[in-house]
Amino acid sequence: MTTTWLAVPQDSPFGPANLPYGVFTAPDQPGRRRIGVAIGEFVLDLGAAARAVGEPSVLLDADSLNPLLAAGRPVWTQVRAALTRWLGDESYRSALSPCLLERDGVELHLPFEVADYVDFYASEHHASNLGRIFRPGSEPLTPNWKHLPIGYHGRAGTVVVSGTPVVRPHGQRKAPADPLPSFGPSRRLDIEAEVGFVVGAGTELGRSVPLEAFREHVFGVVLVNDWSARDIQAWEYVPLGPFLGKSFATSLSPWVVPLDALEHARVAPPARDVEPLPYLDDREAEPWGLDLALEVRLNGHLISRPPFATMYWTAAQQLAHLTVNGASLRPGDLFASGTVSGPEVDSRGALIELTWNGENPVKLPDGTTRTFLEDGDEVTITATAPGPDGTRIGFGEVTGRVVP
Amino acid sequence: MTTTWLAVPQDSPFGPANLPYGVFTAPDQPGRRRIGVAIGEFVLDLGAAARAVGEPSVLLDADSLNPLLAAGRPVWTQVRAALTRWLGDESYRSALSPCLLERDGVELHLPFEVADYVDFYASEHHASNLGRIFRPGSEPLTPNWKHLPIGYHGRAGTVVVSGTPVVRPHGQRKAPADPLPSFGPSRRLDIEAEVGFVVGAGTELGRSVPLEAFREHVFGVVLVNDWSARDIQAWEYVPLGPFLGKSFATSLSPWVVPLDALEHARVAPPARDVEPLPYLDDREAEPWGLDLALEVRLNGHLISRPPFATMYWTAAQQLAHLTVNGASLRPGDLFASGTVSGPEVDSRGALIELTWNGENPVKLPDGTTRTFLEDGDEVTITATAPGPDGTRIGFGEVTGRVVP
Repeated sequence: MTTTWLAVPQDSPFGPANLPYGVFTAPDQPGRRRIGVAIGEFVLDLGAAARAVGEPSVLLDADSLNPLLAAGRPVWTQVRAALTRWLGDESYRSALSPCLLERDGVELHLPFEVADYVDFYASEHHASNLGRIFRPGSEPLTPNWKHLPIGYHGRAGTVVVSGTPVVRPHGQRKAPADPLPSFGPSRRLDIEAEVGFVVGAGTELGRSVPLEAFREHVFGVVLVNDWSARDIQAWEYVPLGPFLGKSFATSLSPWVVPLDALEHARVAPPARDVEPLPYLDDREAEPWGLDLALEVRLNGHLISRPPFATMYWTAAQQLAHLTVNGASLRPGDLFASGTVSGPEVDSRGALIELTWNGENPVKLPDGTTRTFLEDGDEVTITATAPGPDGTRIGFGEVTGRVVP
Repeated sequence: MTTTWLAVPQDSPFGPANLPYGVFTAPDQPGRRRIGVAIGEFVLDLGAAARAVGEPSVLLDADSLNPLLAAGRPVWTQVRAALTRWLGDESYRSALSPCLLERDGVELHLPFEVADYVDFYASEHHASNLGRIFRPGSEPLTPNWKHLPIGYHGRAGTVVVSGTPVVRPHGQRKAPADPLPSFGPSRRLDIEAEVGFVVGAGTELGRSVPLEAFREHVFGVVLVNDWSARDIQAWEYVPLGPFLGKSFATSLSPWVVPLDALEHARVAPPARDVEPLPYLDDREAEPWGLDLALEVRLNGHLISRPPFATMYWTAAQQLAHLTVNGASLRPGDLFASGTVSGPEVDSRGALIELTWNGENPVKLPDGTTRTFLEDGDEVTITATAPGPDGTRIGFGEVTGRVVP
């Protein structure tokens, strides 16, 4: 059992088996970003901790996770073992206690500089729901959907940390019945509850990453809200895909949960009904389905519980696909799962599905209803996963409020 | 008239009115990247030059253009004025002569770190040709095409400098008649001759860049070959757009031609037959059509002369559109025009159009023909634009050879 000399409740989402990494500033030094790990109600300042125990590290004494990401799996394992030792062994208490800050008192920042951002579309329920909504009477899934994990590149420069206000985007909208497009604020602003994977070790151009090398390249996992302006997206996306309907903001949770903390969350992916090509065939490989339980709240009210374990394509398959053409990876590349939607109505990860394109508004406890987001609305996505000994691994939250 | 004490032929593409910026290494210091400008047959080492004339500059003594890009228009104007003075005034000759290297002897690198890469689709001829090829019998242009400059995000991490070999990508291909997709090297590897715009000064999230602010944000112009695997692209692109069919490589010319060098190339864009929404309405604005004459060579043989002046959407409109939803810009953002195709058969900027989807192969002088690229093929795109006093502003070239 993973233990610590710190007082951490057994049910803490940030217990000693988690140790997610983030970047914070303390109130007394607002300009100085530092790497920390969350433990219970505290943040351990990693640069200071490494110095305090006599093991100084340039990777930990940094203002973003990128140097640590670039260092690769053997270093990640070493660092995690050191953290477990420091926090587990009573003899470190006096040296490390000055390096602990109250988590409530620090400001959290984007934990890494995003290199390229790719968004997938890996939930069969989500893709089928959108197919039924947008192309009624046709096959819900496009012919390629079960042969490859569909994805596209998003805008890395507008990935923001949880808590950043989301300005309602302006753009061109045209409903089918409108004779011409009009310009103005989006009237159909939506969320997409997703899970993001953070690439650490890069690759050279021309190399691909097979399924079994997933663990060598992926450092950890975050929550993603891929805000979407459905009206802008609907008018612009044929034939080259989403652009301004997505590029105004994508929010990330501030704590990167190490892949190593998710060993107890690994599950077999759902059965596939189409035989995958060899580079995507994970039937004999170690399973990379992940049993993450997401929750989506609108103004504090629980509106959905998307189950990540239902995703058709795993992150290992997504990474194998992303690189099979020889595209290189860089430390800080982020790829997200696409909206996580389960089979039940209340497990859908986007308002367009929850309200069936606005036909069935969501009812809130204050008596109001929502089809899409209104100014002032706040959306919060949280998740937990099974940890060792009945504990839960928490992801914290990604939250954002819509402003006009 | 712009003059220089250097011996530069009047017809040089790199005359004193051009002064494009690049990043080079000299043979005696292969690990040390430096900023230079091309002038005649030479490269002026800008960091060394600034020190030699007693005006040292951290922006010029750098290993990429990004710090200069971030500095903004007033600084770009100052630097260009200084370069014109140094190279124009005989009194600088003795100080600067040691800072000149033969252009043939240096290695050129990617001139800036690409932040986000966006690719547009702004040629009416190109978009119409693809519509006719892929959707015969339907309207060639999608209904949105004349209302907004269609674009999408590409992969910034696989943007490479001219001369980098292009590895033929593997991926899933499925012709309409095939029952299932197969996996293997692309059989329909193509080029796209494009013009790229390099963003210097960034913006904050939530701000848009109106047409008239184009010059404040765009530093200069490069040539782009947006290599495309048509078979991979055709199978993957519905509904979220191109992904692996493009992300394996995008090549850039190494010299960034300053926007200031293109004043004589500015022309009115073509007449538009749909009234643009106000944020795209350039009818009363300064014109940002650009009369660049592109040439595409396959194994040294001229196969096309795409005319950039025929583009329906200008770069100023593209930037206004890209940011109208509040998406922020960063120094090093790159946005490309999309394939430049003119109205004539021999002015099309992609093989899929030149050969009409392979029906009319291109004949080469060695007696062979091409529908798409074969291993060993080398494609070179060059361009020039009108300069002052009958001179031409050259862009150099973007070249790449296909390897298996």
